[in-house]
Amino acid sequence: MNVLALAGGVGGAKLAAGLSQVVAQDDLTIVVNTGDDFDWMGLRICPDLDTVVYTLAGLDNPQTGWGVQNDTFHVLDSLRSMGCEAWFRVGDRDLATHLFRTRELQAGISLSEVTRAICRKIGIGIKVLPMTDSSVPTIVDTDEGTLTFQDYFVRRKCEPRTRGFTFRGIENATPAPGVLSALECANAIIVCPSNPFVSIGPILAVPGLKPALSASRATVVAISPIIAGRAVKGPTARMLGDAGMAVSAASVAGLYRDFVDLFVVDVADEMLRPQVESLGIGFRALPILMDTPQSRAALARTLIDMLA
Amino acid sequence: MNVLALAGGVGGAKLAAGLSQVVAQDDLTIVVNTGDDFDWMGLRICPDLDTVVYTLAGLDNPQTGWGVQNDTFHVLDSLRSMGCEAWFRVGDRDLATHLFRTRELQAGISLSEVTRAICRKIGIGIKVLPMTDSSVPTIVDTDEGTLTFQDYFVRRKCEPRTRGFTFRGIENATPAPGVLSALECANAIIVCPSNPFVSIGPILAVPGLKPALSASRATVVAISPIIAGRAVKGPTARMLGDAGMAVSAASVAGLYRDFVDLFVVDVADEMLRPQVESLGIGFRALPILMDTPQSRAALARTLIDMLA
Repeated sequence: MNVLALAGGVGGAKLAAGLSQVVAQDDLTIVVNTGDDFDWMGLRICPDLDTVVYTLAGLDNPQTGWGVQNDTFHVLDSLRSMGCEAWFRVGDRDLATHLFRTRELQAGISLSEVTRAICRKIGIGIKVLPMTDSSVPTIVDTDEGTLTFQDYFVRRKCEPRTRGFTFRGIENATPAPGVLSALECANAIIVCPSNPFVSIGPILAVPGLKPALSASRATVVAISPIIAGRAVKGPTARMLGDAGMAVSAASVAGLYRDFVDLFVVDVADEMLRPQVESLGIGFRALPILMDTPQSRAALARTLIDMLA
Repeated sequence: MNVLALAGGVGGAKLAAGLSQVVAQDDLTIVVNTGDDFDWMGLRICPDLDTVVYTLAGLDNPQTGWGVQNDTFHVLDSLRSMGCEAWFRVGDRDLATHLFRTRELQAGISLSEVTRAICRKIGIGIKVLPMTDSSVPTIVDTDEGTLTFQDYFVRRKCEPRTRGFTFRGIENATPAPGVLSALECANAIIVCPSNPFVSIGPILAVPGLKPALSASRATVVAISPIIAGRAVKGPTARMLGDAGMAVSAASVAGLYRDFVDLFVVDVADEMLRPQVESLGIGFRALPILMDTPQSRAALARTLIDMLA
C-alpha cells in the first residue's frame, strides 16, 4: 500500500513516525505544511518540516515538541546578551539545520531539494516533501491586528483572538515537485491530527492540491486533533472557538467533509458518531492519543490495517 | 595624546588591549585589517575585527588566538555531522557575532556601523574601525596556485610557498568613515606587531591611507612582529623567507621605511640598530613580547611615554 500523509508539526510528526514503523520506506510520503516558515537572524526556519524530520530521526524533544533533544542554547544566549530578540528558542544543533538550509537556498537550491538533502544527511529514507517550494507565510488576522504566524504563536502565545488566516502569495504557489504525483500514486491518504486552520489549511490551499485530493481514488482518512473537546497540543481548540464553532472533533470533521472518506476520533468521542455520519463521512473511534512511541506505531498499524 | 593604532589579529589585538589600559577611551582608535574577512555558511566572518573586539572585551581565547574563551562547538559539530566542511573552527558564542553582523549587513548597515554596534553591545568604548567598508579579500599567490586567505591560512596551514598578495577590489575601496579623520587627528600612530604582508599590508593598500599616513604630523612608530628571527605568531617569518628577505625585524623595518619614524624591536634584537638606522629610521629596543596581560599594558605604557 502506497501511503501519503499530510502533516503539520507535533501531531503530524508523531503519526508520521508511527507510519514509518509500519509502512515500507519507499511506500510512504509525508507532505508537510510550510506556512509557519519564517526568517530569524537571516536564517530560514521551517518549524513543521524540522519537527517531522527530527521526529522521524528520533532526535525530537518530546518535552517541548520542537527542536532537538538535549540541545544547548549558547548561540541564542549570546545573541540575547547582544540585545537581539530571543523569543524564538533556536538551539545550537537546531541552528545547524537552519544554517545549512539557508546556505543551500541562497545558492538557488529549492526547499524540497534541501529537505531531501537534510533527510539524507540525517539518515531518513522516507520521502518528506514541503507542500510547496514557494514562501507562503501564514498571516493571522486577530482582534489585535494581523500578525505573522510565529509572532502570534510563539511571541504572543496564541493570546489574541483569531478572525481568519491567509497564506500570503499562495495564489501563485504550486505544489512542490513530487507532491501531485505522490497524491496520484497513493492508495491511502492520511490527514494527520494537526491543526485544521494553520497546518492542514495551508497545505489544502496550495493551488491544485485540493482538486488532486478530491480526484484521488485513494481512501482519505483524517484523524482528529481534538480529543474530548480539547486540543492535544496547540491552539486548535481556541481557533475553533474563535471561529464560532463547537470545540469538538465533529467541527473538524465538518471542515474536512469535502474530501475525507473517513474521520477517526478518539474512543472518548464515540458519542460523536451520529454527528459525523450526518456529514456523509465514515466514522471510527480508536485510541488516537500518541503519548508514547508504542502508541504512535499502534495507531499507524490500526489505520493501515483498516485501509488495507 | 590622541593615538591611532593599525592592527591585524592577535599581536594587534594584544597591543590594542594594552593601549586601552593606558590611553583615555576617547583618545584611542584602532583601525583593523579586513582582508581576511570571508563568508562561511552564508555568514560574514571578520577574524581580525573579532579578535580585536574580543580581546578588548577580555573575551578572547589566549590558547588559540581566535574565538571566544570557553566556547563550545555544538553548531559546528552538527554541521560536520551533516557533511559540511568544518576546518574553520567557529564556536557557538562566536557564531552569534557572525549571525548578528550578517543580518545587519544584509539589512544594508555598513561594516563600520555594525562593528560600532557590536562594540557597544559588548561594552567596548574605544573606537574600533574596519580599514574599509568594502570587501577586499586577500588572495595569496602560491606555488600551488592562488588561494583565498582562509584557505591558505587555516585549511592549508600556511604550507604553500607564497609568491605575493593581492587584495581583490582594493583599487575601488575607500577608507571606512572615520579612518582618515582619525589619522589626521592623531598625535601618535602605532603600527602594531602584525603581519606586514597580510595584516598591515591590506590596511596600507586602501587608496588614500598611505598618503594620509605620510602626510600626518603624528609620530609613526612600528613594533616588530619578528623577535630574534622568529614570528611571535603566524606566518610572518615564512612569508619573509618566501619573499627572499632575511627573517629579521630589520626586514620589516625595511618594508615600513617610507612612513615610520621609529621602529621598535625586542631587546633580543638590539644588534639590529645599525641596520635599521641605516634605513633612516629611529630605533628602539624594548621588551615587546606580550605574553601576559601585564606585559601588554607595560609595552603600551612605554610606547606612550616615549611618544609623549
